[in-house]
Amino acid sequence: MPKEKLIYFATGNLHKFEETRLILREFGVATAILNVKSLEVQSDDLEEIARTSVLHVVAAQRLPVIVEDAGLFIGVLNGFPGPYSSYIYRTIGLKGILKLLEKEDNRNADFRSVIAFCRPGETPKSFAGTVRGSISTVERGTHGFGFDPIFIPLGGDGRTFAEMAVIEKNLYSHRAQAVRKFAEWYARQSNNL
Amino acid sequence: MPKEKLIYFATGNLHKFEETRLILREFGVATAILNVKSLEVQSDDLEEIARTSVLHVVAAQRLPVIVEDAGLFIGVLNGFPGPYSSYIYRTIGLKGILKLLEKEDNRNADFRSVIAFCRPGETPKSFAGTVRGSISTVERGTHGFGFDPIFIPLGGDGRTFAEMAVIEKNLYSHRAQAVRKFAEWYARQSNNL
Repeated sequence: MPKEKLIYFATGNLHKFEETRLILREFGVATAILNVKSLEVQSDDLEEIARTSVLHVVAAQRLPVIVEDAGLFIGVLNGFPGPYSSYIYRTIGLKGILKLLEKEDNRNADFRSVIAFCRPGETPKSFAGTVRGSISTVERGTHGFGFDPIFIPLGGDGRTFAEMAVIEKNLYSHRAQAVRKFAEWYARQSNNL
Repeated sequence: MPKEKLIYFATGNLHKFEETRLILREFGVATAILNVKSLEVQSDDLEEIARTSVLHVVAAQRLPVIVEDAGLFIGVLNGFPGPYSSYIYRTIGLKGILKLLEKEDNRNADFRSVIAFCRPGETPKSFAGTVRGSISTVERGTHGFGFDPIFIPLGGDGRTFAEMAVIEKNLYSHRAQAVRKFAEWYARQSNNL
Protein backbone atom coordinates (compact mmCIF):
# COMPACT_ATOMS: atom_id res chain seq x y z
CA MET A 1 0.00 0.00 0.00
CA PRO A 2 1.39 3.42 -0.84
CA LYS A 3 2.21 5.64 2.09
CA GLU A 4 0.17 8.51 0.60
CA LYS A 5 -2.78 8.61 -1.74
CA LEU A 6 -1.85 11.74 -3.62
CA ILE A 7 1.29 13.41 -4.94
CA TYR A 8 1.32 17.15 -5.42
CA PHE A 9 2.98 18.57 -8.54
CA ALA A 10 4.10 22.14 -7.87
CA THR A 11 3.87 23.94 -11.20
CA GLY A 12 2.10 26.82 -12.87
CA ASN A 13 2.34 25.07 -16.25
CA LEU A 14 -0.80 23.10 -17.13
CA HIS A 15 0.90 21.40 -20.09
CA LYS A 16 3.59 19.97 -17.82
CA PHE A 17 0.95 18.80 -15.41
CA GLU A 18 -1.10 17.09 -18.12
CA GLU A 19 1.92 15.28 -19.59
CA THR A 20 2.96 14.10 -16.13
CA ARG A 21 -0.49 13.15 -14.90
CA LEU A 22 -1.13 10.82 -17.86
CA ILE A 23 2.02 8.83 -17.13
CA LEU A 24 1.56 8.65 -13.37
CA ARG A 25 -1.99 7.42 -13.92
CA GLU A 26 -0.60 4.39 -15.77
CA PHE A 27 1.31 3.59 -12.58
CA GLY A 28 -1.76 4.06 -10.39
CA VAL A 29 -0.45 7.29 -8.86
CA ALA A 30 -2.93 10.13 -8.42
CA THR A 31 -1.66 13.69 -8.80
CA ALA A 32 -2.88 17.11 -7.79
CA ILE A 33 -1.59 20.41 -9.10
CA LEU A 34 -0.14 22.70 -6.44
CA ASN A 35 -0.11 26.24 -7.71
CA VAL A 36 2.61 27.85 -5.59
CA LYS A 37 5.53 30.04 -6.55
CA SER A 38 8.62 27.96 -5.83
CA LEU A 39 12.11 29.28 -5.35
CA GLU A 40 14.34 28.65 -8.36
CA VAL A 41 18.07 29.24 -8.01
CA GLN A 42 20.28 30.39 -10.87
CA SER A 43 22.38 27.42 -11.87
CA ASP A 44 23.52 25.62 -15.01
CA ASP A 45 22.44 22.39 -13.32
CA LEU A 46 18.76 21.40 -13.64
CA GLU A 47 19.11 18.89 -10.81
CA GLU A 48 20.34 21.54 -8.38
CA ILE A 49 17.45 23.81 -9.40
CA ALA A 50 14.82 21.06 -8.98
CA ARG A 51 16.16 19.77 -5.65
CA THR A 52 16.40 23.24 -4.08
CA SER A 53 12.95 24.06 -5.35
CA VAL A 54 11.23 20.90 -4.03
CA LEU A 55 12.81 21.34 -0.58
CA HIS A 56 11.45 24.86 -0.49
CA VAL A 57 7.91 23.80 -1.43
CA VAL A 58 7.86 20.82 0.97
CA ALA A 59 9.08 23.00 3.85
CA ALA A 60 6.24 25.45 3.21
CA GLN A 61 3.44 22.98 2.40
CA ARG A 62 4.26 19.83 4.41
CA LEU A 63 3.03 17.57 1.58
CA PRO A 64 4.62 14.98 -0.72
CA VAL A 65 5.66 17.10 -3.68
CA ILE A 66 7.26 16.78 -7.11
CA VAL A 67 8.71 19.66 -9.07
CA GLU A 68 10.16 19.51 -12.52
CA ASP A 69 12.80 21.62 -14.17
CA ALA A 70 13.52 21.35 -17.87
CA GLY A 71 15.53 23.03 -20.56
CA LEU A 72 16.46 22.97 -24.22
CA PHE A 73 20.23 22.66 -24.74
CA ILE A 74 21.51 23.58 -28.21
CA GLY A 75 25.02 22.26 -28.84
CA VAL A 76 26.32 24.92 -31.19
CA LEU A 77 25.05 27.63 -28.81
CA ASN A 78 26.99 26.13 -25.86
CA GLY A 79 23.84 24.81 -24.24
CA PHE A 80 21.76 27.99 -24.63
CA PRO A 81 18.89 28.48 -23.70
CA GLY A 82 19.43 25.70 -21.11
CA PRO A 83 18.15 26.26 -17.57
CA TYR A 84 16.76 29.69 -18.52
CA SER A 85 14.55 28.33 -21.33
CA SER A 86 11.39 29.80 -19.87
CA TYR A 87 12.75 33.37 -19.61
CA ILE A 88 14.37 33.15 -23.01
CA TYR A 89 11.15 31.81 -24.55
CA ARG A 90 9.29 34.80 -23.09
CA THR A 91 11.78 37.33 -24.44
CA ILE A 92 13.36 36.33 -27.77
CA GLY A 93 10.99 33.40 -28.38
CA LEU A 94 11.11 30.83 -31.17
CA LYS A 95 11.95 33.57 -33.64
CA GLY A 96 15.09 34.44 -31.70
CA ILE A 97 16.31 30.84 -31.56
CA LEU A 98 15.71 30.38 -35.30
CA LYS A 99 17.59 33.61 -36.03
CA LEU A 100 20.56 32.50 -33.91
CA LEU A 101 20.69 29.27 -35.96
CA GLU A 102 20.28 30.92 -39.37
CA LYS A 103 22.61 29.31 -41.93
CA GLU A 104 23.77 26.86 -39.24
CA ASP A 105 24.04 23.22 -40.33
CA ASN A 106 24.65 21.74 -36.89
CA ARG A 107 21.20 22.01 -35.34
CA ASN A 108 21.59 19.24 -32.73
CA ALA A 109 19.83 19.85 -29.43
CA ASP A 110 18.73 18.00 -26.29
CA PHE A 111 15.63 18.54 -24.24
CA ARG A 112 16.42 17.66 -20.61
CA SER A 113 14.13 17.23 -17.62
CA VAL A 114 14.71 16.58 -13.94
CA ILE A 115 11.92 15.51 -11.60
CA ALA A 116 12.60 16.00 -7.89
CA PHE A 117 10.37 14.33 -5.33
CA CYS A 118 10.35 14.97 -1.61
CA ARG A 119 8.26 14.13 1.45
CA PRO A 120 8.34 16.23 4.63
CA GLY A 121 11.43 15.42 6.67
CA GLU A 122 13.11 13.44 3.87
CA THR A 123 15.93 14.12 1.41
CA PRO A 124 14.83 14.83 -2.18
CA LYS A 125 15.19 12.11 -4.82
CA SER A 126 15.71 13.17 -8.41
CA PHE A 127 15.20 11.50 -11.80
CA ALA A 128 16.53 12.75 -15.13
CA GLY A 129 15.35 12.30 -18.72
CA THR A 130 16.91 13.43 -22.00
CA VAL A 131 15.68 13.33 -25.59
CA ARG A 132 18.09 14.06 -28.40
CA GLY A 133 16.91 15.82 -31.49
CA SER A 134 17.34 18.85 -33.71
CA ILE A 135 15.99 22.33 -34.22
CA SER A 136 13.71 22.76 -37.22
CA THR A 137 14.17 25.65 -39.66
CA VAL A 138 10.59 26.86 -39.24
CA GLU A 139 7.95 26.62 -36.49
CA ARG A 140 5.52 23.75 -36.99
CA GLY A 141 2.52 22.56 -34.99
CA THR A 142 0.19 23.91 -32.33
CA HIS A 143 0.30 21.32 -29.53
CA GLY A 144 2.43 21.56 -26.42
CA PHE A 145 4.22 24.66 -25.24
CA GLY A 146 7.55 26.50 -25.18
CA PHE A 147 10.06 25.32 -27.75
CA ASP A 148 7.93 22.34 -28.88
CA PRO A 149 7.22 23.87 -32.35
CA ILE A 150 10.93 23.86 -33.26
CA PHE A 151 12.12 20.59 -31.66
CA ILE A 152 12.25 17.40 -33.76
CA PRO A 153 12.99 14.33 -31.62
CA LEU A 154 15.46 11.77 -32.93
CA GLY A 155 13.79 8.47 -33.76
CA GLY A 156 10.54 10.08 -34.83
CA ASP A 157 9.20 10.73 -38.33
CA GLY A 158 10.44 14.31 -38.59
CA ARG A 159 7.49 15.99 -36.92
CA THR A 160 8.11 18.49 -34.11
CA PHE A 161 6.79 17.96 -30.57
CA ALA A 162 4.12 20.56 -31.35
CA GLU A 163 2.85 18.36 -34.21
CA MET A 164 2.15 15.52 -31.76
CA ALA A 165 -0.69 15.01 -29.30
CA VAL A 166 0.38 14.60 -25.65
CA ILE A 167 0.24 10.80 -25.74
CA GLU A 168 2.57 10.69 -28.71
CA LYS A 169 4.98 13.28 -27.33
CA ASN A 170 5.11 11.14 -24.19
CA LEU A 171 6.63 8.28 -26.21
CA TYR A 172 9.77 10.37 -26.74
CA SER A 173 9.94 13.26 -24.37
CA HIS A 174 12.58 14.07 -21.75
CA ARG A 175 9.82 14.79 -19.24
CA ALA A 176 8.05 11.48 -19.87
CA GLN A 177 11.33 9.62 -19.35
CA ALA A 178 12.03 11.38 -16.06
CA VAL A 179 8.45 10.85 -14.87
CA ARG A 180 8.59 7.13 -15.75
CA LYS A 181 11.84 6.71 -13.81
CA PHE A 182 10.26 8.41 -10.83
CA ALA A 183 7.07 6.35 -11.11
CA GLU A 184 8.98 3.06 -11.26
CA TRP A 185 10.99 3.98 -8.18
CA TYR A 186 7.88 5.21 -6.40
CA ALA A 187 5.88 2.07 -7.14
CA ARG A 188 8.79 -0.13 -6.04
CA GLN A 189 9.37 1.57 -2.70
CA SER A 190 5.63 1.81 -2.04
CA ASN A 191 5.38 -1.97 -2.45
CA ASN A 192 8.19 -2.40 0.04
CA LEU A 193 6.51 -0.42 2.78
CA MET B 1 33.05 57.46 12.86
CA PRO B 2 31.98 54.54 10.69
CA LYS B 3 30.70 51.52 12.56
CA GLU B 4 33.02 49.19 10.61
CA LYS B 5 36.36 49.76 8.93
CA LEU B 6 35.83 47.50 5.98
CA ILE B 7 32.99 46.47 3.68
CA TYR B 8 33.17 43.10 1.95
CA PHE B 9 32.10 42.87 -1.70
CA ALA B 10 30.98 39.30 -2.46
CA THR B 11 31.84 38.72 -6.11
CA GLY B 12 33.94 36.54 -8.33
CA ASN B 13 34.24 39.34 -10.91
CA LEU B 14 37.42 41.40 -10.52
CA HIS B 15 36.20 44.04 -12.98
CA LYS B 16 33.12 44.70 -10.86
CA PHE B 17 35.30 44.91 -7.78
CA GLU B 18 37.71 47.39 -9.36
CA GLU B 19 34.94 49.67 -10.62
CA THR B 20 33.28 49.65 -7.20
CA ARG B 21 36.46 50.02 -5.15
CA LEU B 22 37.53 53.19 -6.98
CA ILE B 23 34.24 54.91 -6.18
CA LEU B 24 34.04 53.79 -2.58
CA ARG B 25 37.60 55.04 -2.05
CA GLU B 26 36.45 58.56 -2.99
CA PHE B 27 34.02 58.29 -0.09
CA GLY B 28 36.67 57.02 2.30
CA VAL B 29 35.21 53.51 2.42
CA ALA B 30 37.66 50.60 2.29
CA THR B 31 36.56 47.40 0.51
CA ALA B 32 37.71 43.82 0.49
CA ILE B 33 36.75 41.18 -2.05
CA LEU B 34 34.93 38.19 -0.62
CA ASN B 35 35.23 35.28 -2.98
CA VAL B 36 32.22 33.13 -2.03
CA LYS B 37 29.56 31.50 -4.16
CA SER B 38 26.35 33.31 -3.32
CA LEU B 39 22.86 32.02 -3.90
CA GLU B 40 21.16 33.69 -6.86
CA VAL B 41 17.46 33.14 -7.37
CA GLN B 42 15.81 33.08 -10.80
CA SER B 43 13.82 36.27 -11.08
CA ASP B 44 13.18 39.05 -13.59
CA ASP B 45 13.87 41.49 -10.75
CA LEU B 46 17.51 42.43 -10.08
CA GLU B 47 16.61 43.85 -6.68
CA GLU B 48 15.06 40.57 -5.52
CA ILE B 49 18.15 38.69 -6.73
CA ALA B 50 20.58 41.04 -4.97
CA ARG B 51 18.66 41.19 -1.68
CA THR B 52 18.24 37.41 -1.44
CA SER B 53 21.89 36.94 -2.28
CA VAL B 54 23.25 39.40 0.28
CA LEU B 55 21.12 37.89 3.06
CA HIS B 56 22.54 34.51 2.19
CA VAL B 57 26.17 35.71 2.30
CA VAL B 58 25.73 37.70 5.53
CA ALA B 59 24.09 34.72 7.26
CA ALA B 60 27.07 32.55 6.33
CA GLN B 61 29.89 35.06 6.87
CA ARG B 62 28.65 37.38 9.65
CA LEU B 63 30.29 40.40 8.01
CA PRO B 64 29.03 43.67 6.48
CA VAL B 65 28.59 42.70 2.85
CA ILE B 66 27.60 44.20 -0.49
CA VAL B 67 26.58 42.20 -3.52
CA GLU B 68 25.75 43.57 -6.93
CA ASP B 69 23.48 42.22 -9.62
CA ALA B 70 23.40 43.74 -13.07
CA GLY B 71 21.93 43.12 -16.48
CA LEU B 72 21.64 44.46 -20.00
CA PHE B 73 18.02 45.04 -21.02
CA ILE B 74 17.39 45.37 -24.77
CA GLY B 75 14.00 46.95 -25.51
CA VAL B 76 13.20 45.26 -28.82
CA LEU B 77 14.11 41.87 -27.30
CA ASN B 78 11.67 42.35 -24.39
CA GLY B 79 14.44 42.95 -21.91
CA PHE B 80 16.65 40.03 -22.97
CA PRO B 81 19.32 39.17 -21.79
CA GLY B 82 18.27 40.95 -18.56
CA PRO B 83 18.94 39.16 -15.25
CA TYR B 84 20.57 36.21 -17.05
CA SER B 85 23.18 38.37 -18.81
CA SER B 86 26.08 36.41 -17.41
CA TYR B 87 24.81 33.00 -18.59
CA ILE B 88 23.79 34.40 -21.97
CA TYR B 89 27.18 36.09 -22.39
CA ARG B 90 28.85 32.72 -21.71
CA THR B 91 26.69 30.87 -24.25
CA ILE B 92 25.68 32.98 -27.26
CA GLY B 93 28.04 35.87 -26.43
CA LEU B 94 28.34 39.24 -28.16
CA LYS B 95 28.01 37.52 -31.53
CA GLY B 96 24.60 36.12 -30.56
CA ILE B 97 23.29 39.50 -29.43
CA LEU B 98 24.50 41.19 -32.63
CA LYS B 99 22.86 38.45 -34.70
CA LEU B 100 19.55 38.86 -32.87
CA LEU B 101 19.67 42.60 -33.71
CA GLU B 102 20.71 42.17 -37.36
CA LYS B 103 18.80 44.62 -39.58
CA GLU B 104 17.14 46.08 -36.47
CA ASP B 105 16.97 49.87 -36.30
CA ASN B 106 15.74 50.14 -32.72
CA ARG B 107 18.88 49.25 -30.76
CA ASN B 108 17.96 50.98 -27.48
CA ALA B 109 19.14 49.23 -24.35
CA ASP B 110 19.63 49.89 -20.63
CA PHE B 111 22.34 48.60 -18.38
CA ARG B 112 20.93 48.23 -14.86
CA SER B 113 22.65 47.56 -11.56
CA VAL B 114 21.42 46.93 -8.03
CA ILE B 115 23.74 47.06 -5.04
CA ALA B 116 22.44 45.39 -1.88
CA PHE B 117 24.15 46.03 1.45
CA CYS B 118 23.54 44.17 4.67
CA ARG B 119 25.06 43.86 8.15
CA PRO B 120 24.49 40.82 10.36
CA GLY B 121 21.07 40.98 11.99
CA GLU B 122 19.85 43.84 9.79
CA THR B 123 17.50 44.12 6.79
CA PRO B 124 19.22 44.62 3.41
CA LYS B 125 19.23 48.09 1.84
CA SER B 126 19.38 48.32 -1.94
CA PHE B 127 20.41 51.01 -4.41
CA ALA B 128 19.73 51.01 -8.16
CA GLY B 129 21.49 52.61 -11.11
CA THR B 130 20.56 52.69 -14.81
CA VAL B 131 22.37 53.95 -17.88
CA ARG B 132 20.50 54.30 -21.15
CA GLY B 133 22.25 53.65 -24.40
CA SER B 134 22.29 51.55 -27.53
CA ILE B 135 23.80 48.41 -28.96
CA SER B 136 26.59 48.94 -31.50
CA THR B 137 26.63 47.06 -34.82
CA VAL B 138 30.12 45.66 -34.21
CA GLU B 139 32.24 44.89 -31.13
CA ARG B 140 34.62 47.69 -30.21
CA GLY B 141 37.20 48.03 -27.44
CA THR B 142 39.08 45.81 -25.03
CA HIS B 143 38.43 47.31 -21.59
CA GLY B 144 35.79 46.10 -19.14
CA PHE B 145 33.92 42.81 -19.41
CA GLY B 146 30.69 41.18 -20.54
CA PHE B 147 28.62 43.24 -22.96
CA ASP B 148 30.84 46.36 -22.63
CA PRO B 149 32.17 46.06 -26.23
CA ILE B 150 28.68 46.49 -27.71
CA PHE B 151 27.13 49.06 -25.33
CA ILE B 152 27.28 52.77 -26.23
CA PRO B 153 26.10 54.97 -23.34
CA LEU B 154 23.80 57.90 -24.12
CA GLY B 155 25.50 61.25 -23.47
CA GLY B 156 28.93 59.96 -24.47
CA ASP B 157 30.86 60.49 -27.70
CA GLY B 158 29.80 57.26 -29.36
CA ARG B 159 32.45 55.00 -27.87
CA THR B 160 31.43 51.74 -26.22
CA PHE B 161 32.11 51.00 -22.54
CA ALA B 162 34.96 48.75 -23.67
CA GLU B 163 36.63 51.74 -25.36
CA MET B 164 36.79 53.56 -22.01
CA ALA B 165 39.16 53.15 -19.07
CA VAL B 166 37.47 52.31 -15.74
CA ILE B 167 37.52 55.91 -14.51
CA GLU B 168 35.73 57.11 -17.62
CA LYS B 169 33.20 54.26 -17.65
CA ASN B 170 32.46 55.22 -14.02
CA LEU B 171 31.23 58.65 -15.20
CA TYR B 172 28.30 56.96 -16.93
CA SER B 173 27.80 53.44 -15.74
CA HIS B 174 24.79 51.86 -14.06
CA ARG B 175 27.10 50.25 -11.49
CA ALA B 176 28.85 53.53 -10.65
CA GLN B 177 25.47 55.21 -10.11
CA ALA B 178 24.29 52.46 -7.77
CA VAL B 179 27.58 52.45 -5.87
CA ARG B 180 27.48 56.25 -5.46
CA LYS B 181 23.93 56.10 -4.08
CA PHE B 182 25.03 53.44 -1.63
CA ALA B 183 28.17 55.38 -0.63
CA GLU B 184 26.21 58.59 0.00
CA TRP B 185 23.73 56.75 2.20
CA TYR B 186 26.52 54.89 3.97
CA ALA B 187 28.54 58.04 4.68
CA ARG B 188 25.42 59.81 5.95
CA GLN B 189 24.34 57.12 8.36
CA SER B 190 27.91 56.53 9.53
CA ASN B 191 28.14 60.22 10.46
CA ASN B 192 24.93 59.90 12.45
CA LEU B 193 26.21 57.09 14.62
